[in-house]
Amino acid sequence: MSLNEEWFTEICPESGSAFSLKVKQRLHEERTPFQRIEVYETEHYGNLLVIDGYVMLTDRDNFLYHEMLAHPVLFTHPHPRRVLIIGGGDCGTLREVLKHPSVTGVQMVEIDERVTRVCEQYFPDLCSANGDPRAELHFKDGIQWVDQAPQGGYDIIIVDSTDPIGPAVGLFSEDFYRSCRRALAPEGVFVQQSESPLLHQPLIRSMHDKLRQGGFNHVHTLCFPQSCYPSGWWSATMASASTALSDWRANDALNKPFATVYYNRDIHRAALAVPEFMADKAP
Amino acid sequence: MSLNEEWFTEICPESGSAFSLKVKQRLHEERTPFQRIEVYETEHYGNLLVIDGYVMLTDRDNFLYHEMLAHPVLFTHPHPRRVLIIGGGDCGTLREVLKHPSVTGVQMVEIDERVTRVCEQYFPDLCSANGDPRAELHFKDGIQWVDQAPQGGYDIIIVDSTDPIGPAVGLFSEDFYRSCRRALAPEGVFVQQSESPLLHQPLIRSMHDKLRQGGFNHVHTLCFPQSCYPSGWWSATMASASTALSDWRANDALNKPFATVYYNRDIHRAALAVPEFMADKAP
Repeated sequence: MSLNEEWFTEICPESGSAFSLKVKQRLHEERTPFQRIEVYETEHYGNLLVIDGYVMLTDRDNFLYHEMLAHPVLFTHPHPRRVLIIGGGDCGTLREVLKHPSVTGVQMVEIDERVTRVCEQYFPDLCSANGDPRAELHFKDGIQWVDQAPQGGYDIIIVDSTDPIGPAVGLFSEDFYRSCRRALAPEGVFVQQSESPLLHQPLIRSMHDKLRQGGFNHVHTLCFPQSCYPSGWWSATMASASTALSDWRANDALNKPFATVYYNRDIHRAALAVPEFMADKAP
Repeated sequence: MSLNEEWFTEICPESGSAFSLKVKQRLHEERTPFQRIEVYETEHYGNLLVIDGYVMLTDRDNFLYHEMLAHPVLFTHPHPRRVLIIGGGDCGTLREVLKHPSVTGVQMVEIDERVTRVCEQYFPDLCSANGDPRAELHFKDGIQWVDQAPQGGYDIIIVDSTDPIGPAVGLFSEDFYRSCRRALAPEGVFVQQSESPLLHQPLIRSMHDKLRQGGFNHVHTLCFPQSCYPSGWWSATMASASTALSDWRANDALNKPFATVYYNRDIHRAALAVPEFMADKAP
């Protein structure tokens, strides 16, 4: 269902809301072994990536999500070198991670190679760092990858996944979090996209519980705007066994040696602020 | 145009986007001398107020807007007593202002009495403070009211208006800002809703310019989520002649003697954070 053939519409059934973008044309459509990928050219949001009918990103506003998934966690770890990205096939998170000079290697483990190939074609800006010698792209199952990873091999794990339905359900489980904890070095920091603060409080609370049960002693949810996702307000949840998430490298963020569109030191601090209704109910 | 008869849809032409809410029924519709007012019962957002086809508020998420229009400005002034609200006919901002014990009087000047009467019927929570002896409701033109106001009579002016089109255009003019400056006491603080940080940067920059030309030396834009408005990300712009907007009563906000759903001390500080793209371009 859509407004008419000139619009792409995503309905969010659990909130009885819908978001639509006016489109000029569909640029691409394919069904992979994993999912259905579409790319549209929109009137005012640049190109739009859709997977299984859900908006993944647009040219215009993906900077919010990608910057907030990458930079807070990297400026929380005292010296991040080895980074694992689970999912993230559009490569926008990879690009942001590689802006950090301390990073010596990034493994991106995306289950569906076609997502990356389509994005290389239609979102070349997001894929502009794919040729960086520090980047390794693996097209495999992220849960198995983490299970088989050497203990303590990563400083940072970023889970840049779709919603917790279908193939991504396992990425929101206590078993997966325990594997991530094992694959992280003692000071390691984890982050995962965690849906809308307005619409998905039960999920966020359940993630806090499972992360703690999985061995993470510090858990904190970041909030930030994201206009193309339901409610226009989104979150990422950070976790660490021993690194205090409130004790991040603020001075390094202030003097970051790279450009961003949204993120800076004050925005990092702002994202850590807990709205009153989340403070009351968080475990 | 709507998804079908079960949905209310607002199209934002300048961004080629649309937001829809699934509705159970239309509860009210009338055409006043000023505008067309509708109220819908939605599936998951409670009641919905629509004016001239634009979403004004819903039961579910209006706390974000109303709290962020009221509390930051009141916790910025050292001792706010006399408050003027221009617009705000739904009375949600009035209710938040009256939570502050220092406030001795609030005049709300709404051009269309029918907005308030409809909200008294369909949004009784928002109107629950209308009987407070400190509240005066005037149904008059806000621009004329400010022009005729005694000099220095207010500590706070809050402009809670519709978008800068039609009757609200005059509320975004240098002349109006100069009148507000004159009606404020020397330490007085002004705030006005200022549209989406993502979509309406030219308006925000123009407001900064006009407020400074109107005699306000300190101008700062607050950002906050607002799911039912275009982009889901909204702003309010504060201004003052002599009160530094960064030097607010953080300790009083921490110990506020009333309940909120979103606002608290950390959220106030978060809203003051300037995204990188706004810092670069702000005047």
